[in-house]
Amino acid sequence: MSQRISDMAWWGWGAPERAQTLSPEMRGLLHDALGVRANGPARPRLEDLHPPDSRLPAALVERLTGVVGPGHVSHESEARIRHLRGKSTPDLLALRLGDLADTPDAVVWPASHEEILELLRVCSAERIAVVPFGGGTSVVGGLAPGRAGCRGAVALDLGRLNHLLELDEISRLAILEPGLRGPEAEAQLAERGYTLGHFPQSFEFASIGGFAATRSSGQASAGYGRFDECVVALTAATPRGTVELGQAPKSAAGPDLRQLFLGSEGTLGVITSLTAEVRLAPADRRYEGWRVPDFGAGTGVVRRLIQDGPVPTVLRLSDEIETALNLARPETMGAGGGSGCLLIAGWEGSSDQVEAAAQATHRILREAGGDPVDRAGPEWAAGRYAAPYLRDALLDAGALVETLETACFWSRVPDLYEGVRQALARALEGAGTPPVVLCHISHVYRSGASLYFTVACAQAEDPLAQWRQAKAAASDAILAAGGSITHHHGIGTEHRPWYHRQLGDLPLAALRAVKRELDPAGILNPGVLV
Amino acid sequence: MSQRISDMAWWGWGAPERAQTLSPEMRGLLHDALGVRANGPARPRLEDLHPPDSRLPAALVERLTGVVGPGHVSHESEARIRHLRGKSTPDLLALRLGDLADTPDAVVWPASHEEILELLRVCSAERIAVVPFGGGTSVVGGLAPGRAGCRGAVALDLGRLNHLLELDEISRLAILEPGLRGPEAEAQLAERGYTLGHFPQSFEFASIGGFAATRSSGQASAGYGRFDECVVALTAATPRGTVELGQAPKSAAGPDLRQLFLGSEGTLGVITSLTAEVRLAPADRRYEGWRVPDFGAGTGVVRRLIQDGPVPTVLRLSDEIETALNLARPETMGAGGGSGCLLIAGWEGSSDQVEAAAQATHRILREAGGDPVDRAGPEWAAGRYAAPYLRDALLDAGALVETLETACFWSRVPDLYEGVRQALARALEGAGTPPVVLCHISHVYRSGASLYFTVACAQAEDPLAQWRQAKAAASDAILAAGGSITHHHGIGTEHRPWYHRQLGDLPLAALRAVKRELDPAGILNPGVLV
Repeated sequence: MSQRISDMAWWGWGAPERAQTLSPEMRGLLHDALGVRANGPARPRLEDLHPPDSRLPAALVERLTGVVGPGHVSHESEARIRHLRGKSTPDLLALRLGDLADTPDAVVWPASHEEILELLRVCSAERIAVVPFGGGTSVVGGLAPGRAGCRGAVALDLGRLNHLLELDEISRLAILEPGLRGPEAEAQLAERGYTLGHFPQSFEFASIGGFAATRSSGQASAGYGRFDECVVALTAATPRGTVELGQAPKSAAGPDLRQLFLGSEGTLGVITSLTAEVRLAPADRRYEGWRVPDFGAGTGVVRRLIQDGPVPTVLRLSDEIETALNLARPETMGAGGGSGCLLIAGWEGSSDQVEAAAQATHRILREAGGDPVDRAGPEWAAGRYAAPYLRDALLDAGALVETLETACFWSRVPDLYEGVRQALARALEGAGTPPVVLCHISHVYRSGASLYFTVACAQAEDPLAQWRQAKAAASDAILAAGGSITHHHGIGTEHRPWYHRQLGDLPLAALRAVKRELDPAGILNPGVLV
Repeated sequence: MSQRISDMAWWGWGAPERAQTLSPEMRGLLHDALGVRANGPARPRLEDLHPPDSRLPAALVERLTGVVGPGHVSHESEARIRHLRGKSTPDLLALRLGDLADTPDAVVWPASHEEILELLRVCSAERIAVVPFGGGTSVVGGLAPGRAGCRGAVALDLGRLNHLLELDEISRLAILEPGLRGPEAEAQLAERGYTLGHFPQSFEFASIGGFAATRSSGQASAGYGRFDECVVALTAATPRGTVELGQAPKSAAGPDLRQLFLGSEGTLGVITSLTAEVRLAPADRRYEGWRVPDFGAGTGVVRRLIQDGPVPTVLRLSDEIETALNLARPETMGAGGGSGCLLIAGWEGSSDQVEAAAQATHRILREAGGDPVDRAGPEWAAGRYAAPYLRDALLDAGALVETLETACFWSRVPDLYEGVRQALARALEGAGTPPVVLCHISHVYRSGASLYFTVACAQAEDPLAQWRQAKAAASDAILAAGGSITHHHGIGTEHRPWYHRQLGDLPLAALRAVKRELDPAGILNPGVLV
């Protein structure tokens, strides 16, 4: 069944063979800087985990098998545990602490839109919750729904819907199935000379359907846009039937209802195919690191670039602490060590385009007091998907590590930056552990930016409660400073209370009215989002 | 009351003093080429029009006056007729034919969000239809709602909500009230050095609220984007209360519910303010005309420019017939007369940016067989808002003239172009008059384009029925060829049946669920859109 089950480690991030271990120096740093004194709860072994018995009656398993065919339904422990929750730090801690309460009762692998329609009909009639499962990379509790009112829950693994259905080279559009992983989609498009240009940190494992259902944003969003901006049409299966939306690149035909399914996180329907813009695969890619004097100056120059151009394909800016911690090695940063702030700028296109854009950007970076840091750009590119691997090793060692992100208009960036840092520091000092809070500007727009925070401290006795308190404080601070509760991670269950506060009663009522219309039995990812 | 009533001619397009008359040559052309034999129904005189008596009881008028203050409610004939319908050819013909059935019972001019909230509460309780009225420029029957189940209808003129509320120069955002006309907004922004970059043909009269509520797209959309893409936040008054949406340039916080109000055409709520991106006002603007060999070659080159760059700010392409009819004058097109197809390219920005982009574009246009047509660019710019004035004069003279538009993916452009032309030709030949059908590509995107058709023929005995039949045939052809039923005019009442066919039952049910939630009494623009 290997082709149908996530290749990710079921206990942590990514490919198991790439798991990291901590050097003695790093362990020393955890001890000295964060006050880490004891290992955290250990990674569980599969044979020690005994999920609750499946609540699906045999007759129902037979019905589901009748829809998808023999061998495509499983209620074995391993399959169920591999579809248990996502990859947030609370998800990983819950597993380490032996909490298997959210384990789905079965996993179903449909192969077509029609099979999904039929599964949703059956599960609606039987009141079985359905959790669409793509790459399994949610970091916001998007795969840990409640089951209020449902008799059980099945994970709907989309891994068999993994085809590039059509490539329209005139319109530069690809019709893609939702279970395609990022690298699979890129490999098939590359054979024809195209790319989606969508490279989030989860790229290696996340799926096309997940990109759309969570409004994913990639590291090259300055050049290629967000994934939701690339989706011009989609087909979804709902408990009440098929929805097909989108005939044109843009339209004035009423409200844009594609935008209801983008970001719907599996609560309104299952996206069974989508039409996305593709670009010519770039002949050249160049990523550079530049040191700018401080976070304020760096914020000013990334704002200037995105507002007045030339706009790089990749544009990111680490604050002083992230720069110092991640890049203090002299072999990267040169004589200046970790002082100032590291800015990453990247360009993709023809060699001429890359050269011209890079030169024009250099002038502006130098005006802002920037200096090139030769190795930082290639190092960033080489490690761009690797950061989450470190978390599992840090959790082993007794550190608590998590990330969170937001976006706001440029004029609010300074207050939001300070507000979230202070909230995290205060919440985690309260637990007796001085935290380290890092931040970078991860995505830029003409009117604002996304701030991405990483926080690390020593685990308290109850690390889950410790993190929940800190996350609540950070989320309160985000709302207080006028930021969005999420820029690209999504809502899931973790952001839901703040999402509802931010949205307001009337928009939430409107969204729930849509949900009732499309999913009257309330079986789709209950407790997520709405 | 002049500051509160549309400055447009109540009987036709635009400023009355700019009304056009036909030259004897033009009249000859109508006779010879279109077979026009008799004048059409004449423009009515205000004193001859007697709308049905207002159905609003005096007590209700008093209640409305209590909300907005004395002098801001009118049930006089002139005010009511000035808020009767929009500016489609069917709207203008209905008025010429003396059909006053849609005349609102009163006009109300609120001055604030709170007054609008209160008006909607009163009208919901009393079951009075409310028709939000901005610039009055709808060309799709957006101001001619049905009244099913309502005791009367009031026009909600937004002309007093006409302020630039805030300009955030750091975030390049303006908070604008909906009643601001295009030129008013641009004048206030220009004082500070900014522009919205939104210049549709209706620019001189249309309003900010209308731009958002109909997903307007301007002639410089290649460079500045569509209006809906510039709106990052909005506030709306609904019968159930206030809706505020948008905290960040982009977000992954669930479905983008801003997109429900953009394009909602006043059926879900009244947009009472919005936050839109502004750009630095360009120091330089250059518009050029180029002749390309034919429509196919021209389509190829505009596609190449938008897909691979450099992307001009303005990019348009007329087909052979539009080129020949509009530009056959030797003083414009030079020795080549009207042969080939006219392409308009424009660049806005700093002088250096304009020069560099123009030079890069010239190389690509020459490769495609293009030659510059010196006077065509400036002439296009000078006349860019003038075309609708001619229609009133043509209607006087007995011609039937109307425009319609659609958008589709690039691979569908040839079939859509032929399909709509043939449908119009067939439908209007059936009425015994050989039509002329002109077309241009009016807006371009990476994955497709908007096609804008102008059709002219001799009026039949019943020109309204004649046009409805042709419009239905064109709309059927658009759907058959996979185009959107509208790209930038909106749905209103005219596109509603095709919109519902295109949308499908389930998305329509979802939209109606939202409508029921926000407008349970169904008073907002009944019969429009949903």
